[in-house]
Amino acid sequence: MQLKFLSMYSPAQLSDLQTRWNKIQQAIQGVGADAVILTTSANLIYAAERVFNGYFYLTATGEVLFFVKRPQDLTGENVLYIRKPEDIPALLQERGLALPKALAVEGDVLSFNEVSRLQSIFGDPKLMNASQLMRKVRSVKTPGEIEIYRKTAHRHAQTMQLVPSVYQPGMRDIDFAIAIEQLFRNQGSLGIFRAFGTNMEIFMGSLISGDNAAASSPYDFALGGAGMSPSLPIGCTGELLKEGNSVMVDFGGSFSPYMSDLTRCYSIGKLTDLAYKAHQCALEIQHELEQQAKEGSSCKDLYDIACNMAKKENLSEYFMGYGQQAAFVGHGIGIEINELPILFGRSKEELMAGNVIAIEPKFVLPGVGAVGIENSYLVHKSGIEKLTLVEEQIIELK
Amino acid sequence: MQLKFLSMYSPAQLSDLQTRWNKIQQAIQGVGADAVILTTSANLIYAAERVFNGYFYLTATGEVLFFVKRPQDLTGENVLYIRKPEDIPALLQERGLALPKALAVEGDVLSFNEVSRLQSIFGDPKLMNASQLMRKVRSVKTPGEIEIYRKTAHRHAQTMQLVPSVYQPGMRDIDFAIAIEQLFRNQGSLGIFRAFGTNMEIFMGSLISGDNAAASSPYDFALGGAGMSPSLPIGCTGELLKEGNSVMVDFGGSFSPYMSDLTRCYSIGKLTDLAYKAHQCALEIQHELEQQAKEGSSCKDLYDIACNMAKKENLSEYFMGYGQQAAFVGHGIGIEINELPILFGRSKEELMAGNVIAIEPKFVLPGVGAVGIENSYLVHKSGIEKLTLVEEQIIELK
Repeated sequence: MQLKFLSMYSPAQLSDLQTRWNKIQQAIQGVGADAVILTTSANLIYAAERVFNGYFYLTATGEVLFFVKRPQDLTGENVLYIRKPEDIPALLQERGLALPKALAVEGDVLSFNEVSRLQSIFGDPKLMNASQLMRKVRSVKTPGEIEIYRKTAHRHAQTMQLVPSVYQPGMRDIDFAIAIEQLFRNQGSLGIFRAFGTNMEIFMGSLISGDNAAASSPYDFALGGAGMSPSLPIGCTGELLKEGNSVMVDFGGSFSPYMSDLTRCYSIGKLTDLAYKAHQCALEIQHELEQQAKEGSSCKDLYDIACNMAKKENLSEYFMGYGQQAAFVGHGIGIEINELPILFGRSKEELMAGNVIAIEPKFVLPGVGAVGIENSYLVHKSGIEKLTLVEEQIIELK
Repeated sequence: MQLKFLSMYSPAQLSDLQTRWNKIQQAIQGVGADAVILTTSANLIYAAERVFNGYFYLTATGEVLFFVKRPQDLTGENVLYIRKPEDIPALLQERGLALPKALAVEGDVLSFNEVSRLQSIFGDPKLMNASQLMRKVRSVKTPGEIEIYRKTAHRHAQTMQLVPSVYQPGMRDIDFAIAIEQLFRNQGSLGIFRAFGTNMEIFMGSLISGDNAAASSPYDFALGGAGMSPSLPIGCTGELLKEGNSVMVDFGGSFSPYMSDLTRCYSIGKLTDLAYKAHQCALEIQHELEQQAKEGSSCKDLYDIACNMAKKENLSEYFMGYGQQAAFVGHGIGIEINELPILFGRSKEELMAGNVIAIEPKFVLPGVGAVGIENSYLVHKSGIEKLTLVEEQIIELK
């Protein structure tokens, strides 16, 4: 890979970026593309450690170019300013680079009209799916990403430890959620919550209590909640937190561009015996998956283990939802909250060293709410390492 | 338009939705489409007053259908449950509806692969741009939308009045921003910030102080700020708020699915004479536009008036940014913060009664920061009506 000096990065950043570019280069070679062009925020953050208005371009031969509209102050030999994407072909030709005959574009995310525009600009090349290619590349984290992840997950866990301290008796679910939002922001959360997929909107995270945990949701998140408005039907409803109800707090840890995922469960007063039993079962499922999971583990097998353990305790009907049930028990995390791999029943994937995954066995019990757990893990050759260390029992709020 | 009873709406909602559906029907007839299919959140909120996982479908003959994957509890004769969009053609046929030969799809927003999938499902119809069509339709608000807008703008203004009360000396910009976020949330903001366009991400709004106001931004918002992270380069940087600097607070008023837009300017201590002069000029520009604007006003002319007034005061180089300057002075608002029309130099549009617009003359002064104003207005036949009434002078924070 021929790399020119990019003055906007530190040597350490540049070294890690080179690792990422090598991975992308191998991936595009693997599908027979001549180049990839990236412009959506999650992939720009991966490939350039920043959001800009423009395009990251990488050829199968290893040329890296940044075509930038704005901001106006990015510098480096590989940074080429453009007014519009139509300027790109001439700039490629000036550098002796041919137009790609096969181009990977972000077809799962970038709009139809923007992809069509790129298609026309590049002379109707064969299109390949850069969204899926990048999801695969991004699922195995680089050393630099893992270093960021350790810090962000640690900060997330430390912040979570403070959650009971912002509770006050008499709060509505939304009051408690707002207090937690403020806590997260004061501890350094960037606030932004990125998810893959059409309409996957959420504000910072979700707090669900009581029967709201069973509300049917339009989103592909693990649990739903009816929300404060039909325009954002997820999470709190504005109900008072009630004696005998659980309160599940599942906020994204946006303490860096990388999101850790972490859920803890609280109670107002005491819960039913069934609730504690289900929570214990979630902890046991988590423990079993921690024992089993390592590089090469089948994602399907891990999911099946979880389902079977729930079944053995006669808790299947409450597992991962009640009425509407999520069909996974874990998922990759990264710049987006729902990355690869996914731990679900029809998965054909195996865990790979460098995956960062969330494991989230949860139960929804009518009349009580959601119980269970979620932690973030780094996958190693020989096992998985929990990155989010904080009390896992149900804590009674006072 | 043949409308069946939809049990999920109140009679008042249904009546307003019928108005919207009539407008969409006319628009698709106008471009010669046989049907429109909508699935992205902003258009679902417009056409169905809710987000769901599925599709809103309306034919040129006035048939309205909701193809729903989730949630599981929507009811009504026009609600048809599907597992996947491939189920739609058979359901149309069952109801005696032909497949569209010309179909309007959300090509500016929906992903290339999702549009291609719809294209294939519907037997390769001629595609038309539902994104632009809906932006045009949505730019003229219905009576029901205007009623919501009055409430949300009023709540926004009331909340803004409380902003100085959450300031404490010694705050960093981010501390003040977090306090304002909490204030907005406690006053009912849904938090979510919707904008049209690729990568138009922001967290609730922006607070910029001092020279950060001149930071070059990748986004198409009026002003930028460098942000706390290159992964979200907008707004606060974590700097202490400094004596002699302005603090511009521009938060979206997400107190309903409709966002009002409102900016106020504060100071730490006193600002330079030039800053007060520029703020006064912004107020005069606003006043002049309030006098001039009404149904039929040319958006270009309104922009030119603003630029000329800035020029007359020798403030052109600071107008709408310093270094990087935004090329508009106002824009439509609605479910998204950047709707039509746009008040810019090359606009060929005229204001229409029922537009809701933000007018935002602002200046960025080196060494001071941003000054100026933004309010939300409803356009009438004979003039425009300010919806966001709250003190407009620069308030010194103490």
